[in-house]
Amino acid sequence: MKGRTGRAQPLVSLLTDFGLIDPFVAEMKAVILSICPRARIVDVTHGVAEFDIRMGAFLLAEAAPSFPAGTVHLAVVDPGVGSSRRPIVVETKRSTYVGPDNGLLILSATMERIVGVFEISNPSMTRREVSSTFHGRDVFAPVAAHIVCGHRPEECGISICDYVPSPFPDPVMDDESVTCEVLHTDKFGNVATNLTHAHLKYLHAKVGHEITLSTGRRRIHARIVRTFSDLHGKQVGLILGSHGFVEVVCRESNAAKRLRIRRGNVLRVSGS
Amino acid sequence: MKGRTGRAQPLVSLLTDFGLIDPFVAEMKAVILSICPRARIVDVTHGVAEFDIRMGAFLLAEAAPSFPAGTVHLAVVDPGVGSSRRPIVVETKRSTYVGPDNGLLILSATMERIVGVFEISNPSMTRREVSSTFHGRDVFAPVAAHIVCGHRPEECGISICDYVPSPFPDPVMDDESVTCEVLHTDKFGNVATNLTHAHLKYLHAKVGHEITLSTGRRRIHARIVRTFSDLHGKQVGLILGSHGFVEVVCRESNAAKRLRIRRGNVLRVSGS
Amino acid sequence: MKGRTGRAQPLVSLLTDFGLIDPFVAEMKAVILSICPRARIVDVTHGVAEFDIRMGAFLLAEAAPSFPAGTVHLAVVDPGVGSSRRPIVVETKRSTYVGPDNGLLILSATMERIVGVFEISNPSMTRREVSSTFHGRDVFAPVAAHIVCGHRPEECGISICDYVPSPFPDPVMDDESVTCEVLHTDKFGNVATNLTHAHLKYLHAKVGHEITLSTGRRRIHARIVRTFSDLHGKQVGLILGSHGFVEVVCRESNAAKRLRIRRGNVLRVSGS
Repeated sequence: MKGRTGRAQPLVSLLTDFGLIDPFVAEMKAVILSICPRARIVDVTHGVAEFDIRMGAFLLAEAAPSFPAGTVHLAVVDPGVGSSRRPIVVETKRSTYVGPDNGLLILSATMERIVGVFEISNPSMTRREVSSTFHGRDVFAPVAAHIVCGHRPEECGISICDYVPSPFPDPVMDDESVTCEVLHTDKFGNVATNLTHAHLKYLHAKVGHEITLSTGRRRIHARIVRTFSDLHGKQVGLILGSHGFVEVVCRESNAAKRLRIRRGNVLRVSGS
Repeated sequence: MKGRTGRAQPLVSLLTDFGLIDPFVAEMKAVILSICPRARIVDVTHGVAEFDIRMGAFLLAEAAPSFPAGTVHLAVVDPGVGSSRRPIVVETKRSTYVGPDNGLLILSATMERIVGVFEISNPSMTRREVSSTFHGRDVFAPVAAHIVCGHRPEECGISICDYVPSPFPDPVMDDESVTCEVLHTDKFGNVATNLTHAHLKYLHAKVGHEITLSTGRRRIHARIVRTFSDLHGKQVGLILGSHGFVEVVCRESNAAKRLRIRRGNVLRVSGS
Repeated sequence: MKGRTGRAQPLVSLLTDFGLIDPFVAEMKAVILSICPRARIVDVTHGVAEFDIRMGAFLLAEAAPSFPAGTVHLAVVDPGVGSSRRPIVVETKRSTYVGPDNGLLILSATMERIVGVFEISNPSMTRREVSSTFHGRDVFAPVAAHIVCGHRPEECGISICDYVPSPFPDPVMDDESVTCEVLHTDKFGNVATNLTHAHLKYLHAKVGHEITLSTGRRRIHARIVRTFSDLHGKQVGLILGSHGFVEVVCRESNAAKRLRIRRGNVLRVSGS
């Protein structure tokens, strides 16, 4: 937790749906550096689809494990800005998350074990004047800067338990199959699901290597493999991806395009 | 003004129309860090439409107030590169601007009060060899780096008064209405105009809360409100945006798309 | 070479084909900052077309000369990840390159003179667990971080000579013409070729200022000029660009669009 208490490198990660045309991201960085000039800021992405909390939650959870302990993750995908949705700080065993209370932070924070969640209400942690439309700059950025410079999450406000949970359902398992959801398709067409290492082991024990993926009326034959190089020709693979989620992949082509799978699709994985 | 005179955090903001595919922005940063290794650089945007001085001027003016005093704002939207347009440094009460003399810097600099404008002619402040096509790297980046490291704007060259003014006209006010221009529509569809707080007060005093926006032959009923949450259902609002410009907004939809308003449109605001 | 041996500013440049939506670039940066918290990271581009080694090689070669000596250039365009293609470090007179052994690094490194090429095999320089799909994060980022913090390239593994060469052919010269290739068209439509200063001098000596560009059946009249401002009206120019490559340009229009020239086109340059 050193990063939070003022050593050489206070590190802030930044994820939004603000895009890179408007100066919104720059304003947040300027506010952070005004409060904590030593802070290092790493952009996770600003290409989350507008107001898409699920996409933001997934990309944050993919990125967070690579960051050092003590990082403050600042994430803003905030369709409820200006309404009564609460601004929160989530403290985990490993890092701190700052953003809106709409589920965005919870998938990633849960994977690191949540220690406490605090509603931001202390006005000395935010900008003096808070606009109704840009809490990223006026609330979340100052709070992240104060925390990365040494303030404690509990200084932000009272502890709460009724925060909004992760937007993702758990996979459904029965004796013959696992039903999961496509959380994301990346630039290379790899299809990430909400299955993790444990689900893959369960599946393998139940049905073996050769499996069937069902989506709508289509059935796709696939194999559970360890690496891309275990796939031959046009085989479809189920693989534990490099971010901890199980992915549907093809070796030399874009799996999402070839299999016509999209984010939000439900996949049933069963024996072949 | 400490930032200019060598304290812990020399901060440079960077705005261009160079996009993010070509390595132009990286070259400018590399030059800055070669001269001033301690400099921190924050990208405002590189998505200004090609050669669109007005768009660049507006986005710079939106971003600048969030930066700490002493920031050097480096902005390059430069259709006249290689011609006789002058390179300039603009010193304000709060910060320093470096870029081409084509109006790009003046909207933002004026809002901070201009103290002096200097034509860049001192060859020891620029690269030894200056290409005819890339003054961003060869002139503006080195000048910004030298200034953020402690050199004074007046070391760049002689003071001038005949710099190119802001590309935006002032709104036109009469007893019954204000005629303004749409400067920008942001990612969320908010429509920024060249009206400021003072114009909004004037309007409110003259015609009250209920107003009519006229553009071409169309008339749109709208309300002057304080925050998004003062709008109900499909109401259209006129609001003082979080960047100091008056915006036309809708609560739950993209105002620009719904009202078919574009950058450059003229809007007449009158009583309803 | 100070930058490699631990002075104030260890600088890493970063070029990939990962795009800016997925968090891949952020993960690489997080890994670098975990190992070398003082490192400064400058994005060259993440917009290289997917798996396009030639485009990556060219953009890297354009950007590298602006960086200070001692920079570590980390570049990942890696269709062969997970196969037997080797990970390498290339040491030059001026800087260090880290990336896959597929030619990506060699154009730029050759221009700085290669001192040694090393195959990365020392496991203490990489992540403990190396995924089969993301060597950018698990191999190349840690190696770059270790080198920029003071480790020597030769600590990575054995010296090799049979590395994959640059993906670009040399221009072909005969007594009457030079045949070259279009390496890139930039955002402003300037058409970069694999001709350098020496070729331009050769051409000028052989055929004078007035030249003919032939591509397919089309013939385009052009002039060898020094700067854009030597061109009048709709003239087409051949110019030594600001990055050291000869470019086909138009003064006030997009040359690539107007002349319908694309990356990969072969151009024959002869007398008019």
